[in-house]
Amino acid sequence: MAPEVLNTPPIDFRASPDKYRHWKLALENGVAYLTMDVNEDAGLRPGYKLKLNSYDLGVDIELADAVQRLRFEHPEIGAVVIRSQRDRVFCSGANINMLGLSTHDHKVNFCKFTNETRLAIEDASVHSDQTYICSINGIAAGGGYELALACEQILLADDGSSAVSLPELPLLAVLPGTGGLTRLVDKRLVRRDHADFFCTTAEGLRGKRAKEWRLVDRLIPPSKLGDETKKIAAEIATKSKRPKDAKGIALPTVERTIDGDTIRYGHLTVEIDREGRSAKILVKGPASAPPSDIHAAGAAFWPLALARDLDDAIMHLRLNETEIGTWVLTSQGDGALIEAYDAVLAREASDWLVQEIVLYWKRTLKRLDVSSRSLIALVEPGSCFTGTLLEIVLASDRSYMLDGTVEGSNAPAATLRLTPMNFGPYPMGNGLTRLATRFLSDPKHVDELKNEIGETLDAEAADEAGLVTFTPDDIDWEDEVRLAVEERAGFSPDGLIGMEANLRFAGPETMETKIFARLSAWQNWIFQRPNATGPEGALKLYGTGKQSKYDRKRA
Amino acid sequence: MAPEVLNTPPIDFRASPDKYRHWKLALENGVAYLTMDVNEDAGLRPGYKLKLNSYDLGVDIELADAVQRLRFEHPEIGAVVIRSQRDRVFCSGANINMLGLSTHDHKVNFCKFTNETRLAIEDASVHSDQTYICSINGIAAGGGYELALACEQILLADDGSSAVSLPELPLLAVLPGTGGLTRLVDKRLVRRDHADFFCTTAEGLRGKRAKEWRLVDRLIPPSKLGDETKKIAAEIATKSKRPKDAKGIALPTVERTIDGDTIRYGHLTVEIDREGRSAKILVKGPASAPPSDIHAAGAAFWPLALARDLDDAIMHLRLNETEIGTWVLTSQGDGALIEAYDAVLAREASDWLVQEIVLYWKRTLKRLDVSSRSLIALVEPGSCFTGTLLEIVLASDRSYMLDGTVEGSNAPAATLRLTPMNFGPYPMGNGLTRLATRFLSDPKHVDELKNEIGETLDAEAADEAGLVTFTPDDIDWEDEVRLAVEERAGFSPDGLIGMEANLRFAGPETMETKIFARLSAWQNWIFQRPNATGPEGALKLYGTGKQSKYDRKRA
Repeated sequence: MAPEVLNTPPIDFRASPDKYRHWKLALENGVAYLTMDVNEDAGLRPGYKLKLNSYDLGVDIELADAVQRLRFEHPEIGAVVIRSQRDRVFCSGANINMLGLSTHDHKVNFCKFTNETRLAIEDASVHSDQTYICSINGIAAGGGYELALACEQILLADDGSSAVSLPELPLLAVLPGTGGLTRLVDKRLVRRDHADFFCTTAEGLRGKRAKEWRLVDRLIPPSKLGDETKKIAAEIATKSKRPKDAKGIALPTVERTIDGDTIRYGHLTVEIDREGRSAKILVKGPASAPPSDIHAAGAAFWPLALARDLDDAIMHLRLNETEIGTWVLTSQGDGALIEAYDAVLAREASDWLVQEIVLYWKRTLKRLDVSSRSLIALVEPGSCFTGTLLEIVLASDRSYMLDGTVEGSNAPAATLRLTPMNFGPYPMGNGLTRLATRFLSDPKHVDELKNEIGETLDAEAADEAGLVTFTPDDIDWEDEVRLAVEERAGFSPDGLIGMEANLRFAGPETMETKIFARLSAWQNWIFQRPNATGPEGALKLYGTGKQSKYDRKRA
Repeated sequence: MAPEVLNTPPIDFRASPDKYRHWKLALENGVAYLTMDVNEDAGLRPGYKLKLNSYDLGVDIELADAVQRLRFEHPEIGAVVIRSQRDRVFCSGANINMLGLSTHDHKVNFCKFTNETRLAIEDASVHSDQTYICSINGIAAGGGYELALACEQILLADDGSSAVSLPELPLLAVLPGTGGLTRLVDKRLVRRDHADFFCTTAEGLRGKRAKEWRLVDRLIPPSKLGDETKKIAAEIATKSKRPKDAKGIALPTVERTIDGDTIRYGHLTVEIDREGRSAKILVKGPASAPPSDIHAAGAAFWPLALARDLDDAIMHLRLNETEIGTWVLTSQGDGALIEAYDAVLAREASDWLVQEIVLYWKRTLKRLDVSSRSLIALVEPGSCFTGTLLEIVLASDRSYMLDGTVEGSNAPAATLRLTPMNFGPYPMGNGLTRLATRFLSDPKHVDELKNEIGETLDAEAADEAGLVTFTPDDIDWEDEVRLAVEERAGFSPDGLIGMEANLRFAGPETMETKIFARLSAWQNWIFQRPNATGPEGALKLYGTGKQSKYDRKRA
């Protein structure tokens, strides 16, 4: 099996419960039970079997879908239990044969998505009061334990054999890279020497020591695990502030058509320029004013519909179009309408559905922040980068705004507009808004910008306000933009990835930025080292009975 | 020239101004002038020429020596000017041919040392009131500008050609990895889109835009640059609180003998076990009580002498013994004497020399924290891990303390003792003490430990206090320790490096931890990527006129 087979496009990120092959979703008394039962013959690609509840990207796509649906479709659910259908095995982590067969870029992009799903689980617990509990009956190894670490409570059967472990280093010469190392010391605050011992002990820990070392929260006799889990979850669900009597909204499959190099969504179009190794992403503003009943509009409500389109487009481009290194972000529409939508989002902020929509935009914009693509925003006549959409400009590595109108066109000159949505609801992974991160040298300026909310900013004003990078006029626009995009395509992708990962996140670090920056960067490094992924590396030889012979030099 | 030639041992980290080949050090009215004048024929290894004030590790060893000596030997110096002897060239960064010829481990260890030197420059400015100013006449490219970024003020000749630049990405497909990317956005708070443009523009920026974008602090007409620099430096020196009338202490060359696999220093011995791929580092306590006159004792004062030995041993092992992956840290001596020394350090904390000694211990312990070696501390009968030396145990990945005495030996049972030095003066790069980092789950415990200051803690008490990992008795000791060290030697070095880098630094992140974690990790990754270091990579082809053909996949 050639490695290329594993990431042959397209991987489809759209899922729905009736088609799940690896998870069972059951709802009972305000608690959701998400039961892992991986179908070993239903890997995303041929060439490996998903034994022992191990996972590939396909398993995680279903998990991400379930986490998302529980928030939107089930306001009555206040707690979610993750558990396994199998005896003696909770989950044995990412499938090793799959990793061994994957290209470097697939491994890295796969890990990024699984990291985002774990963070979405934590986001649901913390911000939507839909608290995740992990109930472990058997072995939770590697990515299996990392999934548990993303939950707020970890319950472990105290049966002398159920155990948690991170065997990546001793068995495979790689890291627990789906947040494992970071969550151990930064979320569960495990002492570093205990973490060191734990991460070098392939069989992991169980029972009393696992609890004493903070690796799990409760030990429960195996015969009582099921009942106790239900009891604990029910208590948490009862205390949850989720609106139990509300009616959820359905999330139908995101509609899209792929037509050669054009991908059309309801509110977004992607045009791929293969020769230029760039994709133009055109985001479309709403066609009309906000509806009076958001709940009735449901998934058709423009901010939600666009977020779903954008989310899918990001994932599609990331995994299926790895050679398209630059995303050129553009928009088209009426900024005044977006301002009206933002006003609704701000005014109805306490409504559970509006809250979910805003949190979803937050997560989608964060996906943009950690996408390993160069992001160039073009603010052109006819565009509508207002409020929520202005965040796309602020998330870009740089932006160009056309000063004035274009000869021969009657599109109005480009303008930007700030709304209250730019000042809080969409923090980056570092905990700051994009504006606060941008103006770390002058925090007062962010306060001053609040006075500009609702003002129409032309290119000169936007430049003055520091919201865009360059403001060429009609005469210079085409050359300047073309050169910028061409130049980007000429640089080393690896160098750009590293540069962007460092420049995008100034200021404070959080568990989240640590996971995407330090942990992922080290994992990526290790994924390139012959000791792990060379023909004689541990990842390649695992299961063959052969022993890796390591290069011993310490870098 | 085979790559191996470049890191053929031993590289000697001991330097002194009379032997400098690349720097000139002049003192004038409280200001030191450190003038870069790299001898292109005096590279550390044959095979490359250090043209245009480019540097290799040898150049940086001299710089580190000068920075260190100015603190200890020159209390009268309140400002340090870094400048170039050459016309039109300040410094063109790390030598590219040297990088192209170096092994991966040499490149990585070289970058770590240069990073530590830049941080030592900042430490001198911030904590010793010996403020660094960079005066740029000509081109400051790559590592040249990164050196400037480590200074508190950057002065640039405004002559239409002097410029600052970070051309690593466009020219070499690597990162400005000596803190450049991090300092841009986290120290100088350059806006991320400006930083993006700057880092992709090989020729860099000059004049007004360089100042407006916060890349430099002042523009000065070229004819006035020398005089203005002197004036600015003199003003800063005048305001410095350095003790201008004090007498510095001389730092004679650190004495050591290398005898096969044994390295002997005045207060430290290293025994290398090549087969076991480990080195035993034995730190020796003082032979007698603290002297009444620390200044008279000078470099012979035990805490200073030991820090110098330890610093040299760390650097020697890092660069010259790259296959020795585990450092086993032991001590021998009288804890009560160390307690007395620590009492002096605490009592005389306002004395400039004592302050320098404590800051030096802080830096040396940080070197241990970022060394890419597994650190295992053994607390054995006869050891003296008290106060300052206890930090070595706390810096280790794990520790073993022998419970009780050893049959047939009359060495007293091992004990630990806390002193005030464990509670503040030696913060890690994350800004927290090692105790605070260790007990993030229970900050109150750190306060409780203050009540234990001066108490003699046997193995049981040390275990109870959470200061050690395991406490085997005489019967289990040998097997348990041997297995731990052997096991470590069996793991993949790369995996261990990544794991340790993630587990050692829980809690807050700082510019410093960002440099060693995210920036260095990305740089290490890129140093492994064919786009940079493959036979057709940009680093290899630089200067040949040939163009790299990049693999375009975005990981």
